[in-house]
Amino acid sequence: MDVSRRGLLLGAGGIVGGGLVGVAAGYSAASVGSPVTPGDLQQPVTVSPGIANTQVTVSDPYGTDIISFYGPRQAGVDTPLQAHGVFIGLYLHDDTDADRLASMMRLVTDDAARLTQGRGALADLDEELAAAPARLTVTFGFGSEVFNRTRPELKPSWLKPLPEYDIDQLDPAYTGGDMVIQIQGDDPLSVAHARRMLLKDARAFASIAWVQTGFTHARASHPDDTTMRNLFGQIDGTGNPTRGSETAERVIWGVGDGDGNGTKSLQPWIENGTSMVVRRIAMNVDEWDELDRPMQESVIGRRLGSGAPLTGEYEHDEPDFDAPGPTGFPVIADISHIRRARTSDSDEAMFRRSFNYDELPTSSGNQLHGHTGVSESGLIFVAFQCDVDQQYIPIQDRLAETDHLNLWTIPVGSAVFAIPPGCEADGFIGEPLFV
Amino acid sequence: MDVSRRGLLLGAGGIVGGGLVGVAAGYSAASVGSPVTPGDLQQPVTVSPGIANTQVTVSDPYGTDIISFYGPRQAGVDTPLQAHGVFIGLYLHDDTDADRLASMMRLVTDDAARLTQGRGALADLDEELAAAPARLTVTFGFGSEVFNRTRPELKPSWLKPLPEYDIDQLDPAYTGGDMVIQIQGDDPLSVAHARRMLLKDARAFASIAWVQTGFTHARASHPDDTTMRNLFGQIDGTGNPTRGSETAERVIWGVGDGDGNGTKSLQPWIENGTSMVVRRIAMNVDEWDELDRPMQESVIGRRLGSGAPLTGEYEHDEPDFDAPGPTGFPVIADISHIRRARTSDSDEAMFRRSFNYDELPTSSGNQLHGHTGVSESGLIFVAFQCDVDQQYIPIQDRLAETDHLNLWTIPVGSAVFAIPPGCEADGFIGEPLFV
Repeated sequence: MDVSRRGLLLGAGGIVGGGLVGVAAGYSAASVGSPVTPGDLQQPVTVSPGIANTQVTVSDPYGTDIISFYGPRQAGVDTPLQAHGVFIGLYLHDDTDADRLASMMRLVTDDAARLTQGRGALADLDEELAAAPARLTVTFGFGSEVFNRTRPELKPSWLKPLPEYDIDQLDPAYTGGDMVIQIQGDDPLSVAHARRMLLKDARAFASIAWVQTGFTHARASHPDDTTMRNLFGQIDGTGNPTRGSETAERVIWGVGDGDGNGTKSLQPWIENGTSMVVRRIAMNVDEWDELDRPMQESVIGRRLGSGAPLTGEYEHDEPDFDAPGPTGFPVIADISHIRRARTSDSDEAMFRRSFNYDELPTSSGNQLHGHTGVSESGLIFVAFQCDVDQQYIPIQDRLAETDHLNLWTIPVGSAVFAIPPGCEADGFIGEPLFV
Repeated sequence: MDVSRRGLLLGAGGIVGGGLVGVAAGYSAASVGSPVTPGDLQQPVTVSPGIANTQVTVSDPYGTDIISFYGPRQAGVDTPLQAHGVFIGLYLHDDTDADRLASMMRLVTDDAARLTQGRGALADLDEELAAAPARLTVTFGFGSEVFNRTRPELKPSWLKPLPEYDIDQLDPAYTGGDMVIQIQGDDPLSVAHARRMLLKDARAFASIAWVQTGFTHARASHPDDTTMRNLFGQIDGTGNPTRGSETAERVIWGVGDGDGNGTKSLQPWIENGTSMVVRRIAMNVDEWDELDRPMQESVIGRRLGSGAPLTGEYEHDEPDFDAPGPTGFPVIADISHIRRARTSDSDEAMFRRSFNYDELPTSSGNQLHGHTGVSESGLIFVAFQCDVDQQYIPIQDRLAETDHLNLWTIPVGSAVFAIPPGCEADGFIGEPLFV
């Protein structure tokens, strides 16, 4: 069935090490030079410049769309991807002991609940900025230090830095952290406001380790089944298990037996908890541009436009790794990204939720990392899985060892967090660590 | 009539000096602590987290909405505001003489025309990233040096740095430049792609002086007549002349006599050309937050929620500057922003098209400018007007001299450009300078 078929394909799209993700179709692209008439995008609505430039008509504004905050699981994990995302790594102050940490979590939980539901934060003077949350979600994750200061015995064994990979060039400015706040939504304004309000709450207890800001595509700009495209032009996230499917339940939350193709003994660190890996992956788009299109497609093993494997026609066609090309070598090269990511074990999988980043080319940040000045682009790669060691590391290991794509990508940041369960209105996120 | 009434109000909303802009209503806000049910936003569509988290439905994707590139005037001037904007200041290389400059303008014009119409740039390998322009516009502006190297006799007399104001703390990182490329659209992905393609074109001829990235609110998130809100929570741009109105035609393009309340002898530097002022205005949101709401409203002279003047009920009510308050002083203070911006001369006006910026709090940039670490926020203030000296400077002078709002805002960047006319498919932007 669809679910198990997707299960088999799980690894196929995952970019983990230096990588990105499978390529698949959202709309097909025309050849260079001809006007693009994307297949499943609507016909262009031409707005002429000048006097005829009337206001865009919005028939059904989505600003007040709300995603529930309270519940057994935190939102922002398998929530459908939003347009904008901010990830904030925090270091706890030395004097933030368990009591103070609980105070902080009460404060940020309460404000996250208010902001995501379209209310101002406590004593928020700019509450107008909160009135249109546009599917705002706030998700909290804990690093090792949070457990050290509360209940070390609950610390999952996988909650530690990823192994050091040769492909890595980790920058402390994007690595580690005692805690993460993930803020996402469809409106950059409500995201910006939430970031400021939550940082105001946190600043008495923690300092900023890093901030990463990213985007996918604007909400309502594409058909609803369009997966986001990264800055190499590849669709990113195709192989994800379907939300709510047996496979997704098992991969993310460790619930059930999955599709029967899994072999691991997955166990969530806490019921309705999961793990989050955040990798900042610099993409050398300038050198990538120097490849021709067939070469780009060969590196991935899929076509850029349709996302189909090189041996198939459609995005979800099963790749045929044995099919020989004209020269006798396989059409899909052994070092191609999809070949290396492939696994037959459906537990060896993750749920990806990545965002593009595109920094100012003049910023000082990571210009070190092979960028040539026109752009400083990449992927805030985010993956959720029940167990980092059993699910994430094997794929990462394979890709770090050999993946053609590694030539154009460099992991420059890395962090792992434990995602605690959600809470109800009388509780706060992380409460099980304080009882 | 509406147009002339707006004409009278023109200055009332303009923030120029250290300022921002009038406050007005998009939706009304509830009081702190109660759930917000914004008046003219639709009812919330609740999406539950977890299994029920199905994909957002998009009935009418706007990704292929296109704004014409070719025409007598450049797009991006009185085009309805998009959600995302990037402004790139360039310095011409020493060897970029008139011939090379013409080559550059041919190249960037051609690619801007292609990208805005949903086609890849010339030899664009990531053309999928161009297929959904989402009202992408590209606008080119020239600084003094472009005229020096081409036809100095066409240089407008107002094309020079603004006067030095006491309130200014200009940072070279956001000031000046020989040329500007303004890229705007509703999808951050197509804007990012266009930025990269156009910088690739330009890099043989020019280097980057500065880059500024901003946002308004996401397209389709708010009702279509909602003016954007800045990071002080104020609606920004209320007093703008109506696109296509007599006043707008005269204010922006120097065409006609306007509404009859103007007194200037406005003359465009070239037919269908105009001017652009870009001011980066840092906003100390942290200190602003320390004011209570009545004080915030007193600084502006308008209510935050509704945008109504303090003497009125609705956004477009005429402020009564003589109305006394309980203590005998005017309700709208003499030093309030709307009082200082006010003018009865409808030619003393501009068309504002500003974007919010909200940088990473850890960036090194302008943390100097009074920010306390939680946010580095402000406004990329953009104003178009036929004649900087006659229209912009008088308002700026008044606001720089006294405006209560100056206590929380600091201009940290400033640049002035001449906007040349549009072109047809066989021409290029700026062609009149090369004949």
